[in-house]
Amino acid sequence: MMKKYLIGIDIGGTSIKIGLFNLEGILLEKWAIPSNKTENGNHILTEIAQAIEKKYNLEEVNGIGFGVPGPVQNNKVIHCVNLGWKEVDVTSEFSKHLKKAYSLRIKVANDANLAAAGERFQGIAKGYDNVCMFTLGTGIGSGIIINGSIVEGYNGFAGELGHMVIDSTNQILCNCGKQGCLETVASATGIVSLAQIHLANSLEDSLLRFVKKLSAKKVIDFAKMGDILANRIADESMDYLAYAMALITYVIDPGIFVIGGGVSNAGDFLIQKIEQHYYKYVKPFILHTTFKIATLGNDAGIYGAAYMVKE
Amino acid sequence: MMKKYLIGIDIGGTSIKIGLFNLEGILLEKWAIPSNKTENGNHILTEIAQAIEKKYNLEEVNGIGFGVPGPVQNNKVIHCVNLGWKEVDVTSEFSKHLKKAYSLRIKVANDANLAAAGERFQGIAKGYDNVCMFTLGTGIGSGIIINGSIVEGYNGFAGELGHMVIDSTNQILCNCGKQGCLETVASATGIVSLAQIHLANSLEDSLLRFVKKLSAKKVIDFAKMGDILANRIADESMDYLAYAMALITYVIDPGIFVIGGGVSNAGDFLIQKIEQHYYKYVKPFILHTTFKIATLGNDAGIYGAAYMVKE
Repeated sequence: MMKKYLIGIDIGGTSIKIGLFNLEGILLEKWAIPSNKTENGNHILTEIAQAIEKKYNLEEVNGIGFGVPGPVQNNKVIHCVNLGWKEVDVTSEFSKHLKKAYSLRIKVANDANLAAAGERFQGIAKGYDNVCMFTLGTGIGSGIIINGSIVEGYNGFAGELGHMVIDSTNQILCNCGKQGCLETVASATGIVSLAQIHLANSLEDSLLRFVKKLSAKKVIDFAKMGDILANRIADESMDYLAYAMALITYVIDPGIFVIGGGVSNAGDFLIQKIEQHYYKYVKPFILHTTFKIATLGNDAGIYGAAYMVKE
Repeated sequence: MMKKYLIGIDIGGTSIKIGLFNLEGILLEKWAIPSNKTENGNHILTEIAQAIEKKYNLEEVNGIGFGVPGPVQNNKVIHCVNLGWKEVDVTSEFSKHLKKAYSLRIKVANDANLAAAGERFQGIAKGYDNVCMFTLGTGIGSGIIINGSIVEGYNGFAGELGHMVIDSTNQILCNCGKQGCLETVASATGIVSLAQIHLANSLEDSLLRFVKKLSAKKVIDFAKMGDILANRIADESMDYLAYAMALITYVIDPGIFVIGGGVSNAGDFLIQKIEQHYYKYVKPFILHTTFKIATLGNDAGIYGAAYMVKE
């Protein structure tokens, strides 16, 4: 039967997002089912298989791509704490749960890597062969595309950019147990940590002192409104990010950095700060690098998952 | 006519090394001609063409690969200060200087990138899809291979690892004009700079105080002999290198780091120091990374150049 569709599935800790795409990568339909994390997430693949087999004729589907929040290597999930998974061979496991053997490509990759692939497929990085994407949320997700392919690395550890130790003098403890990780200063949580430090270490006037619950959004909103301390905090955070981007440029020179996640709602305000610091760190080399806000939002993962099974 | 050979050419500032390989990558013959840098290196490609056309039947050659000491992108040299070259399209320029139009692949890449490709082709990194190589000499050369291909980057700037700013407190000025570059502390020159700083800043006993002309080799030889200060200098230098390697791992997780160049003659002594510091920086993540001394020496470039035109 003619292959007409691609399916991209983004398995998160709370819900599983499912997208139906045509072969050109146009999103036709998107829906979600809850993530059943009971019994170490053993039912997740079964429930996905049932849900999509009920809704679609898989004979017409070229492939199903999965994104998971954990390291993946050569199409095998290494572990995935959020789902309760240890090593899972998604292709063979998922196939078992389908009612019959379809002629289907089934692939799996890390969700942050897929967000980068998604932005390259149908988002802001379209046309770029090499892409580095940061998703700045509670933590930092990141993904790297080189020559059009996701870079997983020898240990499935490539693109773990949030754990680059970029400031050994920084005392904020990262979830990973180290100090000085990029995530501790450039994620939404990191911006709040920097704000707490600045507010505690000075008596400087700031609208932030009147806020009941600090958030990255408030820091950035106040900075945009002209609050000097808030602006210094946002600036410091983006300076760290720009420094990491300069280091990454010395390694892979990606040409485009894409920023997604909640913090990226700050838009051009962030981009300007990043550019200003970045070019300071890559001096005296003349490099053309583009910095853009992601355009696919939370759908980047399903786009990237569909992209994987396009050919 | 049957294609039987590959030619790998490494164009340096002093001499041009030429290697004849069979299609399996066995080096059959190697020789050199001087680099004629008069008139902005305009004669270099002509003289290479004459030399190899005189010696070989190019009908039997599958391809000729060139390595140059400067940035290259999509088969075009961007500039090459050592040779006096600005932008050069090596494929078309070189073809013009041949007596006839052969059916030949002609490709060009950066020499440090080719050294990495060479070590992957026939050296210590054989079998690895992803490789990061450092050549520690007067400066630091470096190259990155991902999925078997050289990573050039958007600006031809990928793998410029010597200019990663890894210590902003370091006051040593790099040739690039910045401070804190890896090259200022982990090249042979960098080891001498560290030694000078340590000798000036303390009165500690050391064999290094009796040396007329400091060199990286002397620092390492004395360190191996048990000289405490020399050992501390070597250790500090390799600590910086290991920190850069950890940062690179968070980006591309190459699986193997290869060390070449004059400093690499120190062998296992260096590898042990690097490993010890590296695992400190990647904690708590469990990563399997291999550190090896390069095995092709100065021939890595011609091997890499031949590899490029293999298929």
